[in-house]
Amino acid sequence: MPTFEFILGGVTAAPGFKAAGIHCGIRRNKEKKDLALIVADQECAAAAVYTTNTVKAAPLYLTMENLKNGRARAILANSGNANACAPGGREAARECVAATAAALGLSPTDIIVNSTGVIGQPLPTKTIVSAIPELVAALSLDTQDVAEAIMTTDTFSKTAAVRFTIGGVPITIGGIAKGSGMIHPNMATMLAFLTTDCAISPALLQEALRDSANRTYNRISVDGDTSTNDMTAILASGTAGNPEITKKGADYDIFLAALNALNLHLAKKIAQDGEGATKLITCTVKGTTCEETAATIAKSVISSSLVKSAMFGTDANWGRVLCAMGYSGASFDATKVDVAFSSNEGRVQVCKESIGLDFNEEKAKAVLGPGEVTIEIDLSDGTASAEAYGCDLTYDYVKINGDYRT
Amino acid sequence: MPTFEFILGGVTAAPGFKAAGIHCGIRRNKEKKDLALIVADQECAAAAVYTTNTVKAAPLYLTMENLKNGRARAILANSGNANACAPGGREAARECVAATAAALGLSPTDIIVNSTGVIGQPLPTKTIVSAIPELVAALSLDTQDVAEAIMTTDTFSKTAAVRFTIGGVPITIGGIAKGSGMIHPNMATMLAFLTTDCAISPALLQEALRDSANRTYNRISVDGDTSTNDMTAILASGTAGNPEITKKGADYDIFLAALNALNLHLAKKIAQDGEGATKLITCTVKGTTCEETAATIAKSVISSSLVKSAMFGTDANWGRVLCAMGYSGASFDATKVDVAFSSNEGRVQVCKESIGLDFNEEKAKAVLGPGEVTIEIDLSDGTASAEAYGCDLTYDYVKINGDYRT
Repeated sequence: MPTFEFILGGVTAAPGFKAAGIHCGIRRNKEKKDLALIVADQECAAAAVYTTNTVKAAPLYLTMENLKNGRARAILANSGNANACAPGGREAARECVAATAAALGLSPTDIIVNSTGVIGQPLPTKTIVSAIPELVAALSLDTQDVAEAIMTTDTFSKTAAVRFTIGGVPITIGGIAKGSGMIHPNMATMLAFLTTDCAISPALLQEALRDSANRTYNRISVDGDTSTNDMTAILASGTAGNPEITKKGADYDIFLAALNALNLHLAKKIAQDGEGATKLITCTVKGTTCEETAATIAKSVISSSLVKSAMFGTDANWGRVLCAMGYSGASFDATKVDVAFSSNEGRVQVCKESIGLDFNEEKAKAVLGPGEVTIEIDLSDGTASAEAYGCDLTYDYVKINGDYRT
Repeated sequence: MPTFEFILGGVTAAPGFKAAGIHCGIRRNKEKKDLALIVADQECAAAAVYTTNTVKAAPLYLTMENLKNGRARAILANSGNANACAPGGREAARECVAATAAALGLSPTDIIVNSTGVIGQPLPTKTIVSAIPELVAALSLDTQDVAEAIMTTDTFSKTAAVRFTIGGVPITIGGIAKGSGMIHPNMATMLAFLTTDCAISPALLQEALRDSANRTYNRISVDGDTSTNDMTAILASGTAGNPEITKKGADYDIFLAALNALNLHLAKKIAQDGEGATKLITCTVKGTTCEETAATIAKSVISSSLVKSAMFGTDANWGRVLCAMGYSGASFDATKVDVAFSSNEGRVQVCKESIGLDFNEEKAKAVLGPGEVTIEIDLSDGTASAEAYGCDLTYDYVKINGDYRT
């Protein structure tokens, strides 16, 4: 296994990146930052993956256009307004990018842009454009403000960074991410922005990001709703000094393993901070003939409203786990399912070969207590496995989403 | 259009059917009936559709076996225990059916059987078997007790009947159904049992039931969870005196139209009585090139946790409607979507050609008030249309499912 270590920091952990997050006025609450910028000291290889939702927000189209050459130098994002299904959305995104490019002395095509917040309301372009000078002036090595500026209903900011070496050269990847509703990513996630000093070609960077997103962000769900604005983007400056990664091999594998670890860390934070959530639910599926089957089953289980409600109520209602497996679309032997629940409080097996076991309900209640809970599934039919991550369904999810716009 | 009228009654509305519902002791609460029986005076053409869940309850397998000859005479069902993933499930179902057949003087293969309730706990076979004589003694023309005996978290019983004529011969179809959680039927529904005196061959009865289930029960969702026990079954005695329907044509069309109307009525009651629901949500999609596209979009919208939460909060958050359309998997022009909300309180258009309109928020709040709300979608791309039915997501859904087993 390649080795890497988690270090403090986020998108400014790799040398050569600055970031800023300010309140510009998109949100009414002046305490809430709503405009974010990440800038590299020099041009970077760049890659992004986007939502598969047919209804895509305007800034995603502009980012796709700008990333055609696989190069970029900055990421602009706002919270409080999704700039999706809003009049003049593409022009609004273009204006914000143009103002940012002018203030930074860059070409507009060097800028990745996205938005998150309410769908269908016009982006307050003037408010954003007039705040760009202040935003640029605020650029620093701090990673906290920028992480806060992309938050919507998130209750904590999500930052992480990993360090590893390729051929003795130290390399860093750092990132920030946000959740926390409309989270059921498909080929991308709600916002995650990553930076690295690794030297890697745009083509391989794109492949690594897509592969990693499939195994991390695409394995979480908060509410089954795939957003119109999902995007994960990465900037790779190449200043670390490693020989540029231009083909698959040992160096690529190291980079990908570190990227996976970072993305998984951020993805789990998104699941843990799902709207209204009180606990992180991990579903591990092993004993399948292929990883995709395991992943399909695991994601179906952590997406089930009934499983999620049972987890909230610390109810070891494993029948709902089998039910969610059964409608997942995956093919498996429905008579060979073992299920157990585990956490720091211990482990209790509840089902063997698809038949319920007598188990201690008191112990099960304790195992399903606050914090992190794992639903373990074994299909005894192969050596492949996968994990998916979600959260419980609570009164607060309903409260938060019953009147989100006001 | 063929004409039919709704009449009072349920599974005993058609002549020649009796029913009973009693408390036998599967449930602790003696006020709650838990054992149901429907019996025809003579052998019937019979058909059923079942859940597509890979994990199927034991009684479904026995029913499939018993319906191979397209004939049956009785339906036995219990609530309080799903007989799914439970030790000895198939033997338990067989014992209950054998006892019922003996008490009625029928062959065991004449009996359709199903269960609904908690998954994974052994069916209390002795309790059921010893209550069969009492159940048979209770058979009557009453339809209320049998409808109550299949209820789980339902808050009201669901019965309906329609009458129509074929060649001047009056014909009746009656039915009972239950919801109200783990409802996202696929090729079937949570329990619905229908009876008719229509003369129709088993093959056409099966085709009519499948077609009708696809357009009614399969278009509702409470929580996205497709149950292990879903089943819709129909008994057709043929005593009405119409020439037996043995091929498609005018008579079949009349029968199908009446069956559709009945099933739609029961399906909407299931949606309206979804766990914790305060309102019935209908999504109408028109202007598509094919009905399947319209149905896929409509079902995605009424299944979205975010749309459902917004409906609970009377929040005209139409962006979530477009989001749910976009991830439905259906193909449509994402720039041509019109959306309106309507109810007895009026109608308010909120989105035209995928762009938000200025609308009166106060009026929208009133339109989204208690009762029934319709989400109208127009894609202006054809003449096909479809509807789907769901309910809002409320605190009570979480409460009910946070601790269902206790």
